[in-house]
Amino acid sequence: METTAYAITRDLEAPFDRVVERVRSALADEGFGVLTTIDVQGTLREKLGLEVGPYVILGACNPDLASRGLEQEPDLGVLLPCNVVVREADGVTHVAAMEPQAALELAGNDRLEPLAREARERITRAVQQI
Amino acid sequence: METTAYAITRDLEAPFDRVVERVRSALADEGFGVLTTIDVQGTLREKLGLEVGPYVILGACNPDLASRGLEQEPDLGVLLPCNVVVREADGVTHVAAMEPQAALELAGNDRLEPLAREARERITRAVQQI
Repeated sequence: METTAYAITRDLEAPFDRVVERVRSALADEGFGVLTTIDVQGTLREKLGLEVGPYVILGACNPDLASRGLEQEPDLGVLLPCNVVVREADGVTHVAAMEPQAALELAGNDRLEPLAREARERITRAVQQI
Repeated sequence: METTAYAITRDLEAPFDRVVERVRSALADEGFGVLTTIDVQGTLREKLGLEVGPYVILGACNPDLASRGLEQEPDLGVLLPCNVVVREADGVTHVAAMEPQAALELAGNDRLEPLAREARERITRAVQQI
């Protein structure tokens, strides 16, 4: 596991589809449902005729954290849900989850700080668990 | 129109549903398709029994910009799509679109700079056009 400026990442040997399942399950254990799934590979093929490897963006939301955040910052939806990328390249399945503290800092609202920290802890545990 | 730390915002007198339609159309004129729609009001009601006003998050994607960004930064999906919030409060319909330059700066990748600028210009025009 590694934390970059904006993501918590991890490389796994397991096949793409299996990792997507495991990510969903690990997120669920931390109270995050997946509200949206963007098939990047399919979208780029359909819209541009481009061929890229398997790539999805899962939009994960913990309703309790989200509702508390929206109370403090009504436009917070701009920074939600918490995206988790799963992509395959060179035989490795790579996971990259949004680092919630980095993303929420954009709002510059100190009252989001405890929520951002909790979100970061939960997402970190989910990535560890995959 | 106003630009905050992370969003380009605008208040409109038109009804919520009509604004959602107009946002979709303005985004389409700038090459952004709406890939995801999160009904925040419905989700919070279903998951927590909470009542909030009409609130959606539209996930907008310009496939050309997205594919060029992913070439430069494979994990960029973490920061995509470009979210546009539409919400109603006190008889006003409020629009808040992600400020793409602020969001993409999180990646700390200079090669994204021209794309981020173009995305910002397009999103700004879309919000003006609503």
